[in-house]
This record gives sequence, C-alpha cells and structure tokens, in this order.
Amino acid sequence: MSPTEVPKIIKPENRPQPSPDEAESLDVWGFRDTHFEINEDGNAIIRGSRYELSGKELPRLISWVSEVAGYKITREDVNRPQYPTVIPDPILAPLFLAELDAFLSPAQVETDAENRLRHGHGHTQEEMYAIKYGRLGRIPDLVVYPENENQVVRLVEAAQKHNVSLIPYGGGTNVTDALRCDPDERRTIVSVDMHRMNRILWIDRENMMASIEAGAVGRNIMSGLKKYGLTMGHEPDSVEFSTLGGWVATNASGMKKNRYGNIEDLVLDVTVVTAGGKLERTSASPRESVGLDLRRLMFGSEGTLGIITSAVVKIFPLPEVQRYGSILFPTFEQGFRFMYDLTREVTLPASVRLLDNIQFHFGQALKTKSTGAGADLKSKIEKFFVLKVKGFDPDKMVVCTLVFEGSRQEVGQQERDVYRIASRYRGMKAGSENGRRGYQLIFSIAYIRDFLMPYHIIAESFETSVPWSKALALCDNVKRRLADEYVSRGLPGKAVCTARVTQLYRTGVCIYFYFAFPYKGVANPQEVYLELENAARDEILKSGGSLSHHHGVGKLRRMYLPRIMSETTMRWKHDLKKTLDPQNIFGSGNQGLDGR
Amino acid sequence: MSPTEVPKIIKPENRPQPSPDEAESLDVWGFRDTHFEINEDGNAIIRGSRYELSGKELPRLISWVSEVAGYKITREDVNRPQYPTVIPDPILAPLFLAELDAFLSPAQVETDAENRLRHGHGHTQEEMYAIKYGRLGRIPDLVVYPENENQVVRLVEAAQKHNVSLIPYGGGTNVTDALRCDPDERRTIVSVDMHRMNRILWIDRENMMASIEAGAVGRNIMSGLKKYGLTMGHEPDSVEFSTLGGWVATNASGMKKNRYGNIEDLVLDVTVVTAGGKLERTSASPRESVGLDLRRLMFGSEGTLGIITSAVVKIFPLPEVQRYGSILFPTFEQGFRFMYDLTREVTLPASVRLLDNIQFHFGQALKTKSTGAGADLKSKIEKFFVLKVKGFDPDKMVVCTLVFEGSRQEVGQQERDVYRIASRYRGMKAGSENGRRGYQLIFSIAYIRDFLMPYHIIAESFETSVPWSKALALCDNVKRRLADEYVSRGLPGKAVCTARVTQLYRTGVCIYFYFAFPYKGVANPQEVYLELENAARDEILKSGGSLSHHHGVGKLRRMYLPRIMSETTMRWKHDLKKTLDPQNIFGSGNQGLDGR
Repeated sequence: MSPTEVPKIIKPENRPQPSPDEAESLDVWGFRDTHFEINEDGNAIIRGSRYELSGKELPRLISWVSEVAGYKITREDVNRPQYPTVIPDPILAPLFLAELDAFLSPAQVETDAENRLRHGHGHTQEEMYAIKYGRLGRIPDLVVYPENENQVVRLVEAAQKHNVSLIPYGGGTNVTDALRCDPDERRTIVSVDMHRMNRILWIDRENMMASIEAGAVGRNIMSGLKKYGLTMGHEPDSVEFSTLGGWVATNASGMKKNRYGNIEDLVLDVTVVTAGGKLERTSASPRESVGLDLRRLMFGSEGTLGIITSAVVKIFPLPEVQRYGSILFPTFEQGFRFMYDLTREVTLPASVRLLDNIQFHFGQALKTKSTGAGADLKSKIEKFFVLKVKGFDPDKMVVCTLVFEGSRQEVGQQERDVYRIASRYRGMKAGSENGRRGYQLIFSIAYIRDFLMPYHIIAESFETSVPWSKALALCDNVKRRLADEYVSRGLPGKAVCTARVTQLYRTGVCIYFYFAFPYKGVANPQEVYLELENAARDEILKSGGSLSHHHGVGKLRRMYLPRIMSETTMRWKHDLKKTLDPQNIFGSGNQGLDGR
Repeated sequence: MSPTEVPKIIKPENRPQPSPDEAESLDVWGFRDTHFEINEDGNAIIRGSRYELSGKELPRLISWVSEVAGYKITREDVNRPQYPTVIPDPILAPLFLAELDAFLSPAQVETDAENRLRHGHGHTQEEMYAIKYGRLGRIPDLVVYPENENQVVRLVEAAQKHNVSLIPYGGGTNVTDALRCDPDERRTIVSVDMHRMNRILWIDRENMMASIEAGAVGRNIMSGLKKYGLTMGHEPDSVEFSTLGGWVATNASGMKKNRYGNIEDLVLDVTVVTAGGKLERTSASPRESVGLDLRRLMFGSEGTLGIITSAVVKIFPLPEVQRYGSILFPTFEQGFRFMYDLTREVTLPASVRLLDNIQFHFGQALKTKSTGAGADLKSKIEKFFVLKVKGFDPDKMVVCTLVFEGSRQEVGQQERDVYRIASRYRGMKAGSENGRRGYQLIFSIAYIRDFLMPYHIIAESFETSVPWSKALALCDNVKRRLADEYVSRGLPGKAVCTARVTQLYRTGVCIYFYFAFPYKGVANPQEVYLELENAARDEILKSGGSLSHHHGVGKLRRMYLPRIMSETTMRWKHDLKKTLDPQNIFGSGNQGLDGR
C-alpha cells in the first residue's frame, strides 16, 4: 500500500445489532447460554456450546476443589440463591423524565427492576453475593441507552438542569465496586448504558488508526476489525464483555500487551462529554506536545469526570502466525527467573504467564473426561517423564503459558529464544496444545466463581504490580498473611490463595491472585472475604506492590489512596473534581471523588 | 543477575560539580569553547576542540549558503551584534529576599544582569535577535539555584507569601518563548535555575530504574549512567544542555525513541512542588491503574503547574553494538515510501531520519577540506557512480541516516531488513561513515544559526507530527506557502525551506522544518520571520499536522490552541490552572495559562 495515494478510509456498516445468542445473564457472569452444573455423577459439566469446554464433563474439578478447600462439595448441599432479592423502588424525577422524551425514544429509557439491579454492580464477590443472598442497597433508578454523542450531550445537560446523578455503564465487568451507588444519594441515579454506541466509525488502513464508539464491546471490536484483516490487539480477560470506554476509564491492560501495548499505549485520542461540554480535539496525531493534555486524565477516571463517547485507537494487521506454547518448571522461582531473563534478553512473545503450583493443578482439574485410551496413555507417559525422569515435584511444579503472534520469522525467533532461556531453569516444553488450552480456559474459568458460590465456596481475584526484586517476597507475604488471618479467625476448611504472573515489564511484573475459601457455617462470608482481601492488600502495599495494576480503584480501594499518594495529590484530585464537575453530576463516587 | 537477591541499588557519588570547560555562552547557542568564524580565506571554520568538526575548515559552507539563499555572505559585511543590549533593572521585593536568606546561601541567589537576561529567553530566532539587536523586554529579576527539594518547597512557600512569580529554568533550550516574561508582570519574577539539582539519586540495576533530580543535564545523565554500563536512551538534539525536568515539562522526544521510547514512555514517576505542596507518590510501579493520575499532567506542563524536582525513569544496558548507516534515494518520495514500509514490516532501528535534497546538500557543504588526494578521488568515484551509473538527479536525491543499537544479532537483522526494503525504492547504501557523520553533525550544526545571524541570515526550525497519508502533501504545502509569502513580500534573495522526517510511528511521522532567509535591508527581520513561520503553521494545521510534535506550545503557539481543541477543553485547562495555582505563582504564562 502506498502512503501517497488517497487515504484508505473504510466506513463500516451501521450499528451492529445484538443477536439473541449474545444475551447475558443478570445474576452470574457471562452469556446466558453458558453455565456450569453438577451432574448426576457429581461431576461438573458446562452447559451450552459456546466454548471449547462446553457440553463436556470435568470429572476432576469438584473433587480437586473439595480437596484444596478442605470442604466436600456435593450436588445436594446448596445455598439456594434468592436472586433477585429486594430491589428498591426507583426515585424518579418527573421533570427530568419529561425532558428525556425530547431526545430519547421510549425504548431508550428503562425502568425494569432486574435491569436496574444489574446496572448497580460489577463482579466483586460481595456484589454477586448480595444480589443472591442479601441486598445490594441503593441502585440506579433508571437506565438510559444513548445512541449517539449528541444524545449524551443532551443527557448531561438535562442532568445538570435537574440535578441528577449519571453513572456511565460499559460492560459491567469491574471488580472494584465502581458501579455501586452511594446509599446516601437522594438524587435520581441514572445508569448510562453505552452498549448502543457500538459503531466502528472509520478505519484508516493507511495510517492504521480507527475511530470507535465507546460502547463497543471487545469481542465485537475484534470481529469488526477482523473482517478487514485488522486487530486492535487489546484483549483483557473480560474482552467478551468489556467496552472500549470501560478500558480507558479503568486504564485496562490486555493479555497481549507485550505486542500491542496497554490501553494508554493504544489510544491516540478520546472524546468525552463533561459537565462543561465536549472535551475534544480537531484531529488525532501520531504523537504531540501541545501542552497540558487533559485526555490523559481519562485513563483511570472511572466515570468521575464525564462520559467517554469515542476514541481513536491504533490498529494492526492480524498476525501472520499465532502459536501457543507452554513450559513446565520445577518451581515458581525458577519460572520467575526465566521470565526475568526473557525481559532482559529477547523480544517478548505477545503473552507470557506463569501459573503457580495450585493453578497448575487447577488447569489439570479442568481436563475433560478422556475420550480414548490413547489420550490416557499419552498423559501417563508424560507424567512418568516429568515426575520420574526429570524429577519434578508435583507439589512444586508450575507452568508457563505462551502466546506468540507476528510474522513467521518473528515467531520462529521468539520460540527459539524462549525455549533456549527456559532450559537454563530446567524448563520443559509442555506443548502448544497445553498453551492454547490455557489461553482459551480463561474465558470459561470466569464462570466458575459464580457456579461455586451456591456450593459454599466464595472466591475472587485481586492484583498488583511490583518491581522484580520485590515480587517473590510479595507473593510469599500475601499467601502467608492470608493463611494466618484465616487460621486466626477459626474459619472452616482451608483458605486457597494462588498467584500468577500475568504481565511482564522490564521494571517488574503484574501479580494476579485468586483467593477462595469454603464458607459453610460462616455468617456473612462476603464480609469475611472482604476483610481478608483487605489484609492481603495491606500486605501488598507493605511489600512494595501497587494498589492496582489494571483493576482500578473504584470504591473498593478508595480508602488506600492516602497511603500511596501525598496529601497534596489527594487534594489536587478533589479540587480538580470540584472544578470540573461542581454539581457532582458524575456521581459514582469512585476514588472518593464525590464532589465534597 | 538474579531477581531474588537483595536489590542492587547503587547510590552514585554526590552532586557533580560543573567544570570550567562546561561553561555555556550567554549570547549564542552552546559551549563557550566552540564557535564558528569566517577565516581569512572567507571559509567557515569551527574554533575549539570539542567536536569532530572542531578546528576544521569547511570550505564549501559559506558559498553553498550564499547560493541557496541568493545572497553573498562575506566576512566583512557584518551586522555587528550589540550584546548585551538594554537590560532592565530588577524589580526586587526586599521582604521576599530577606526570606530567601533563611534557607538559601548568598551563592544561590543571583542578580547579575547578563545572567538574568539569559534566564529570560530560550533559542527562538526572535529572542536571539532581540538580545543582540533589540531588547528582550521584561526579564527575571532574580535567579535562584536551589540545591535540594526542600529548598524548592520553601521557595514556593515564600513566593506565595510575598506574591512572587516563579519560572523554572532547565537548559534554556526551548524554541517556544517558554521562558519569556510577561511584559505586564509587576511582581518580582524569579527564575528557578535547577542546574544544581543534578544528582542521580539512585540506580536500581535489578529493576532497571533510576531516580534522577530534575536539573540533571542530558549529557551528564548519559555519562553518569554510562559508568555503570547503563543508559536512559533519551537523546533529544539538545541533549548536551537540556534537563530531565525540561524534558518532562515539554514532553520531549529523543532521537532514539524507536528503541527507548519518548519521554512519556520513559518516566515512571515524577515529583513536583506545587502551590499546594508536594505532588508525590510512595513508590514507582512498573505500571498501574490507580485512578486519576495527575503525574500525567506534568508532561507538557511547561512550568505552569509547579516545579518538577525529580523523576524515576527506566534505564537500559548500553547496547552491545552501535552502528550507523546511510542510504541515498533518488527522491524524497521514494525515501518516504521506504520509511513507511519499515514501520509496517520490521523492527525499527533506534533512529531513522530522512533529509530532503537541500539538507542533503547542506550535509555535503559541511564536509571539511579534504586532507589528501585519496579522499578526493574516492569522492569523485562515488559521485560518478551515483549520478551516472545509478542516474540520480543531484537536485532531487536525498539521504536517510540510520542509527542501529542493540545486540549483535538484533542489529544484524535490522541492517539486513533495512537495506532489503531500501532496494525496493532504488535506495543505495552510502556507508556507515556518512551515517555516523550525520548523527554527530547534529550537535555542531546547532551553532550555525547564531553564527550566520550577524551575516544577515536569519533562520529557525519548527516541527509537526502528521499521519502518513498527509505528510508529503503537508511538506509541499508548507514549502509552497512560504515561497509564495516570501515573494509576495518582495523580500531579498531566496527563502530556504527544507524538511526532514525525524521520527517514525506506525500512524505517522514527525516532520522537522528549517526556514531561513537573507535579511540584509529588511527592517525587523525577526518579526518578518515570525510572520512567515505563522503562515507555515497555518498551512501545517490546514494540512492535518499537529501544533507540535515535541517543541511544545510556550507562548509562541498559544494563540493556536483554540484552533485544535474545543472550547470546553480550553476552559478546563484554565479552570484547572486557577484551581491548582490560584495566585498564578507559576507565572510563565505558557499556553495562556496565566491564572486569568
């Protein structure tokens, strides 16, 4: 393609319409067509046909979870969900509603109770527990679905006129209480659901940029660009549901950031409707120095400053080659040292993740019923080789999963580099199939937390970033602290804390923890969980970790902000919020930015 | 090195003391030990011994400039500089001065007239003309030299108490009028010269970060890190003089950004003393999502929000191999297409620059007197080959200069890739010596503008970033517009406008222009130049270019801001300034942020 010809601008077709098979559950994670069950044999099985695991039985999962959690899960012993529990009546402002009529159709304004409930939370364990076993508290009074930027502008104007609180809603996948409503909010709370602003406005193949509306969902951005042989390359674990606007607002990180960059590296321009009008620029530049750049404030703004309506992002050709890989290491530390060397010596593959021993076994527990003697035999030979010949300890070994993307030559070079360095630390190639499976599992694993909740297991994830030199100690400290706190509370069974390294930087890593425990007989297990997660966060901060690598702050972590930044920094943020949104129209209260 | 051992923290020795041979000129660019002259033979010669060209005669330079500018430069016809012209008396606030005594030594407070003058400007042609042939207007009343962060804090407190204006001063190398003082400022203006805050506070080899004070000068950061086999990799053309704080404040770009990144990619954390206290964080993380990140506002803040005191930056091992290269192309367009393909297909060398035909000849004009028949012969054979055998038109051919850094393997691969792609566009390898020379020339060329000013040539540079598809047309439009404006004004000789592509992105390029003309007989040539540069900027914006790629806004370009951003964006910036610095203590007025 020549850079001197007329720009190659593609204007894709109109707004994609959601199809029925894309319906999402209101009470649990994910698509309606997919859920886990325990079948007559007491085995887990995934219903539906969407994923590779769908329709398959997982004969080891339940017994493995039971074993590590020290609690026997049975099909019969269920904490039956009461979803939906109490849904408060809406507080509606009739004059505001009348004003909406002027620029929104009736189909764009929703007061359905379950929908309002869904718009009042993300996916923290506490929220998911609350909607089934307790109560969520204050929720949005109204959900509106703008279809274009002008409607957002008018919505914000109406909100200011009638003193209404607006909370932008993308995929609803956050795990930071970012969507939870202030129980003391007396104004009408409007959830601004951005899903209908989901168009790819233009694709500029020559300059490799695209302008995309903020409500576009990750999977649709992927498929929309793929038609033209392109990708944005941004794939957070939530990519099936999270939106472009949400990515910017939480400062998201994608699994393949080594190749494509994190969200702040990918976004060239962003348009935002604020209390003072539209924050926008006349054009997107490759890179510039034009003074204070307020667009940068939008990364991590979590809905507190305005509603992101669109962004111009970098795009890439689909890679010529995509390959997977996996490597077994005798210990987490050896895998970790391998990763350190990788960042020093070679071009990183698109994704490199290191799972600790528990997660390694979790992956094994997710294997489907073997479908023939051949498969079993292979597995036994492999096991013999790893354990007997190589002498790996099954209670210590870990696995690293790899995704390679690029030209045939790049990928070939990366593979050679990676396996060469792995051999320094007794790393053993475990095949591309295991790597591929590991990557694909991410999407179905996301359903398991909500599946296990009625079976008396409560669980969630939290993460941090930390310099290399402090990372191993941080993992140990967090695991030890959680174990100690668990025991000291006399809680049942065993606490399960497991870590993986999900992102590599030359300066450090992202560590992603899962924490779970069996809650049978525990009063308010969701509160106990939160107490323990807070203990873990305290330990993370003490160990030199950050407050968050990519989940964000929301309301879950706002109390920690004064611990990581100076009083002046805190005051600046509040002053800035008061100046830019004096009525606190963007009333989510995330980061404590409630206009007070 | 192992990531699990105790952190490898190096604390370098105390504050480096400036040596006498580092003294800088007050009236022209650069070190005192270096300047150009016209010798008895009418040839340019560079005095001193600092650079490769130093002490050498450049027999072709004067005649070449005379020819392209259509004006015969002679040794005798000089517009004799009157430096220093009028230096206004300082406006001093006795109570404020008395307060400084409490925390600064007398050697840290300077009222010397020429020094105050130097602190009141950067290097725009207008400023450099003014200090020699006109008057600069309002300048700082006082220069202070803080030696640690606490002194900066107390200085800001004192400024607030006594309502004094502070203007941070780094290398003084800006070309945006960023240091010029508001003629209507009635308060005492204090230039806060950061040069004594020049320590590398710590180097963390294991996590590859370093904490460096903001006043550290680029060349000293390079030499300070080099001792430990390290580099920050940030090398703007001004690296000999500009400072870390200045780089952040102007959102600088380094020549080797392809390998190391621009300043915003390199800085992990920044500490700033503001009107409200210290903006700081407890630790630097590899990457995080912790809500509104005010540190991001500092990139491009140009002294309007506070004084940057230190930053944590990424560091890198010195490359195993550094090699240079150069390629001749028959036309600018062919070189440009080559660059486009590079960004699509391969890992970019650390630096890739494309010089247009005029700059190619300028490079030739900078060749020293040949030192033997061999050298001449070689040159003649080369010429014959290029012009006769390859058929390149000397009035159209251009040159691309390359810097490769990395491991032997990386560099080898990059070289193969680059020359393979170049051959598609009739690119002809012109040797590593020409490439190396081109790179080194950058530093001595910087002296030429001030050298030629007394010989009736006025000149300066300006730049933009622009998507690929618009770049060639932008170059043409700017050159044509300048030529038209020049002719329509009936100005003498010929206007010289020349462009180079200095930075590559997948989405576009940075285009760097030089513009020069002979001003003999022109009244107020500095104002004429400015008018013409403004016409060029108008054309740049119309052609889809940005207001600036890395020079910034300062006061020179503040009037264009409303053309590139919405009213709301402008208002937000002013509201933010008023909120965060209500007294306008940081009174530089850059970007129009004067607290009004």
